[in-house]
Amino acid sequence: MAEKKIGNQTVKFENGPYIIGSAAIAGEKESEGPLKEWFDIKLDDDMFGEDTWEKAESKMLKEVMLLALQKSGKQKESIDIVLSGDLLNQIMSSSFMARDLKLPFLGLYGACSTMTESLLLGSMLTEGGFAHNIIVGASSHFCTAERQFRMPIEHGNQKPPSSQWTATAAGAMVVSETVMDLSKVGIAKSNGSSCGKCQNIKVDCGTIGKVIDAGIKDVNQMGSAMAPAAVDTILNHLQDTGRNLDYYDIVLTGDLGYIGKAIAKDLLVDAGIDKQVVDSRYDDCGAMLFYREEQKVQGGASGCGCSASVFSGHVISRMRAGELRRALILSTGALLSTISPMQGESIPGIAHAVVLETCDK
Amino acid sequence: MAEKKIGNQTVKFENGPYIIGSAAIAGEKESEGPLKEWFDIKLDDDMFGEDTWEKAESKMLKEVMLLALQKSGKQKESIDIVLSGDLLNQIMSSSFMARDLKLPFLGLYGACSTMTESLLLGSMLTEGGFAHNIIVGASSHFCTAERQFRMPIEHGNQKPPSSQWTATAAGAMVVSETVMDLSKVGIAKSNGSSCGKCQNIKVDCGTIGKVIDAGIKDVNQMGSAMAPAAVDTILNHLQDTGRNLDYYDIVLTGDLGYIGKAIAKDLLVDAGIDKQVVDSRYDDCGAMLFYREEQKVQGGASGCGCSASVFSGHVISRMRAGELRRALILSTGALLSTISPMQGESIPGIAHAVVLETCDK
Repeated sequence: MAEKKIGNQTVKFENGPYIIGSAAIAGEKESEGPLKEWFDIKLDDDMFGEDTWEKAESKMLKEVMLLALQKSGKQKESIDIVLSGDLLNQIMSSSFMARDLKLPFLGLYGACSTMTESLLLGSMLTEGGFAHNIIVGASSHFCTAERQFRMPIEHGNQKPPSSQWTATAAGAMVVSETVMDLSKVGIAKSNGSSCGKCQNIKVDCGTIGKVIDAGIKDVNQMGSAMAPAAVDTILNHLQDTGRNLDYYDIVLTGDLGYIGKAIAKDLLVDAGIDKQVVDSRYDDCGAMLFYREEQKVQGGASGCGCSASVFSGHVISRMRAGELRRALILSTGALLSTISPMQGESIPGIAHAVVLETCDK
Repeated sequence: MAEKKIGNQTVKFENGPYIIGSAAIAGEKESEGPLKEWFDIKLDDDMFGEDTWEKAESKMLKEVMLLALQKSGKQKESIDIVLSGDLLNQIMSSSFMARDLKLPFLGLYGACSTMTESLLLGSMLTEGGFAHNIIVGASSHFCTAERQFRMPIEHGNQKPPSSQWTATAAGAMVVSETVMDLSKVGIAKSNGSSCGKCQNIKVDCGTIGKVIDAGIKDVNQMGSAMAPAAVDTILNHLQDTGRNLDYYDIVLTGDLGYIGKAIAKDLLVDAGIDKQVVDSRYDDCGAMLFYREEQKVQGGASGCGCSASVFSGHVISRMRAGELRRALILSTGALLSTISPMQGESIPGIAHAVVLETCDK
């Protein structure tokens, strides 16, 4: 038993599982950023036709899951489990999405680490033989997060330079025991047409993160709080698998932002990883989602939807098109609550890693 | 593949997994109720030596997990994953517990359905070969829940007769691929001495719930909101497994309370299950935890810790002692958020079922 565990924190998959569908949705501002070509759905109104932001976020999550399902070629009835979470209290976006989808549902809370948490759990449940197909996903919305974690946006509060901009975005993937029918695949970038050299993508392994608390108490320094957790998971992943960082074409953290990304790079180099390898492979979704100067996002992007949309859009599409073969992706979460800083607590971080690889199957 | 799935929502286990340790902790009021003899730790102060209620709840969860671990005879280093959740925003109790335990952690949110959600996920990950040993658990605290979901308790607000009393309680179990060494077992009731005829307990199967919304909009009618979800999961479980309800010695829902329990019984009988079988097998933890008249708990008990402590204490101990052979347990959650009712939403419910059986191994 436990024959799929390697090292201390890593699980290895042998029979797939495969990513047979994925989709990304993004808000107005995100759709004007450097990654705009990779989003399947671009909102021109962040209310998305709803009368509250929370309902808009829940609808984003539902729509992106349904689109990922459609792109997988599967029917809703063939989905065994939905796994998702978000930043809202009582994961309101996910709970109401699951009510509408009417499928077996397991709710998660990993703050912004939720996308890889759901993907890793979905992969284990599929590989373990408990499901044929699972939809995984995560969402966030600037306006729901601002009023819950900071101030109502109507206040027009100024944000300090280190604070991050919660992405209005969501991503979803369909994890399956079988490979997909590649003749049906459209790459987001290539105007939806099917792709001559499309690649199947399998989940190779994953590393479950530990909660790491570096003692940061400034709630406007989320990147600094999460970077040590991200690096801890990366180093444990490399140790468990016996791989070097240059095994991967790309290594992405979730939403450390500009400051956290710089700290993570320093910590990786301090741990003995070649600086050139780090510089050429490593990036952070929170540093990729917006144009730093023009879009005025202070410390960069954050939120569950940041890494969820980048992984489900940009990364999967580039892998599908054969531009990337091996990707190490980590969503990164700050596990503070709205009251824990007021009780004198520092900000614990967590990061879960998943390895995606193209395969010839 | 997916050879462990039966029917639409149920997963079946063949190689265990086993419950090799469990523990329950309860607050002052809960420790004066009918189930007091089954709690391992009884608080005489619900602050538990901390300076905030939230820190007290987190400490309860940590202590009950460490006690379950100790009772399992395992070392902390042999635990691969911790799975837990609670009712607090950003699952503060679980996140800070996980920071202190320093073990790989996957956070869950299922409202009061969390205990069986964690147990079911932990069983799948163990049976799937991804872990040797997993600690699962859930917690709640009257004072943290009151101020988050209702009013600060200092207000002294009156509660309507249908409102439920959030339990100050937590429970944890150690799920393992191997059976436990029964010579080390002490039953909570029997003053900790080892037990001559102790039984091993295996997880036989589990049914993942769907979100069911019966349209209830009164936040003081949680039992009514959750009862249809509980019954939906029970009926799907029976259909998937081909069993009748009298296959089980005991069938317990999580925290429907007095009103929800009565509705669940009616719905089960309406669905064609013999009333005598329902009357003799079925009960609800929320109706069991307190003395209804003397303890003035209005609609009964609720909270993640209600079913977590009853399952981890009362049920496991009675099974260990051979008094119960087959138990169908369901934690039941109301997936509303603190703002969803103000946005006109009704209250969605969910329930996950797990079957525990004694075995001669």
